[in-house]
Order: sequence, then C-alpha cells, then structure tokens
Amino acid sequence: MLASGVFDLLHLGHVKFLEEAKKAGGKGAELLVIVARDSTVLKMKGRKPVIPEDQRRALVEALRVVDEAVLGLEDFDIGDVIERVKPDVIALGYDQADMEKLVCEYVNKHGLDVKVVRVGKFAKDELSSSSQIREKIVEKFAR
Amino acid sequence: MLASGVFDLLHLGHVKFLEEAKKAGGKGAELLVIVARDSTVLKMKGRKPVIPEDQRRALVEALRVVDEAVLGLEDFDIGDVIERVKPDVIALGYDQADMEKLVCEYVNKHGLDVKVVRVGKFAKDELSSSSQIREKIVEKFAR
Repeated sequence: MLASGVFDLLHLGHVKFLEEAKKAGGKGAELLVIVARDSTVLKMKGRKPVIPEDQRRALVEALRVVDEAVLGLEDFDIGDVIERVKPDVIALGYDQADMEKLVCEYVNKHGLDVKVVRVGKFAKDELSSSSQIREKIVEKFAR
Repeated sequence: MLASGVFDLLHLGHVKFLEEAKKAGGKGAELLVIVARDSTVLKMKGRKPVIPEDQRRALVEALRVVDEAVLGLEDFDIGDVIERVKPDVIALGYDQADMEKLVCEYVNKHGLDVKVVRVGKFAKDELSSSSQIREKIVEKFAR
C-alpha cells in the first residue's frame, strides 16, 4: 500500500487520508508513505514547504497508521517509484488528480497489476488543508 | 504516565517530548495526554490556538507513542486532574515551568507518590516550537 504527499503542517485531513489509504489496502496491509522532497515541492509549486523534509518525514512516520515513511527521489519520477516499491495498491488524495493521471498512465502502459484508489476529502473539518492553516495564521498574526 | 500541552501546529518537538515522557514512565507505561481546551489557552495566553481543540486532540491520539488523548477540563485545575487520573509519573516539557511548580506544590502538599520529570528541549530542530512555525509562515506568506 503506497501513498504520497507533501504533509506540510500535519493536520487531521492528512491522518484521515492515510487511514483511508490503509483501509483500501485490506486487512494486514502495510502502509508505505513517500514524503515529497523540498526540491520537488519547489519545482512543482514554486516554493518550499514551511517544514523541512526530514521533519515532515519523521512526523508522518510517528503516526500509528504509518508503517514506514521515506523521502521521495530528488528527481521525482512516478515510474521509478512504482518499479522500486512494487505496491499492490496506490492511494491518491482528493488534491492529487495530476498524480493520479500519471500513475494510471504508467500502470496501463506497462500492464501492471496495481490498484489505484482515490480517497475523498473530509469536508467537515474546518482546517483540513495546509493552505487553510497558513491563511488562518497570516490573518491572525500578520501585522 | 501523564503529559499535557496545547499541541497547536503539531511538530517533531511535540513528538519527541511525548516519546521522552513515555520512556520516563518505564517499560510498559501507558501514556495519557491531556490536550488543553481552547478556552484554557485563551485564558492563559490571551488568544486561542490556530487549530481547534477537537482536531488537536485527535491528531495527538493518532501518534503511535500516545495511548490516549483527552481534552482538559473547562475550568483547568491541576489538582482535579491529578486526583482523577492518578498518574505514577507526570512529564513536563521545557516550556512548562509554571505547570511544574503547580504540580510539585500539589503533590507535596497532599503527600502523593507521583514522580515529576522534566523533559528537555530538542535544540537541533529548526522548527520545534509552534510559535517559530507561525513566525515563519507570517514571514513567507504575509503581504
């Protein structure tokens, strides 16, 4: 069972995503999480995360639901990751549509037996995205 | 084993504090964490935490090291907490000097057999306090 993400400013939405991901893997599934490198986030979003990569990785691994958390590749390539990890199931979050496309393309092209599941957003929570948390902090504390 | 705190913007410093706390309880110790109410934080610091109390509690309980996390009392009183929980050991963080004083006074006054341990700060981490994280976000994202 493979899931991935940035996991900046860890919040309950992250935990629920990972719990749903693990559930999707069925009984006894082990959850490996790939935490995006600072450099990958910089390339994709034009800025680094607030929390450095080592700390984001360690915090994700401190969650009960996570069996192992590793940092992503410096030159991120989803094909490389799939070939190395050989997951049975890959879980993707509500905000990972681009990644889902890449994963499905790769899996179909290479005829791999990998199940791809999409895990929903948890709308009920007031602060279940890192950008909402950032915005609230700026609003409250910026002068 | 009892530890308490606000745990706003959960970070690696929190996890290390809780791991040290559990270790101080000895082999087989169970770690109960009391997460401060929004109203208690407002009273003590003059502002509410960024993350609401239910989400802070659930995130703390999602950590492998934590056996149970509960919200504090609306009218926080350390004596009440000690009498209800009856902990063998109480762990206090580097920034809980005031709480340590209250705990020790109560324990001594009532002749209780409770060990009080102080768990150190983890200076190596760049972002191991919630206020540092807030400051970094304001710096980066406020316009």
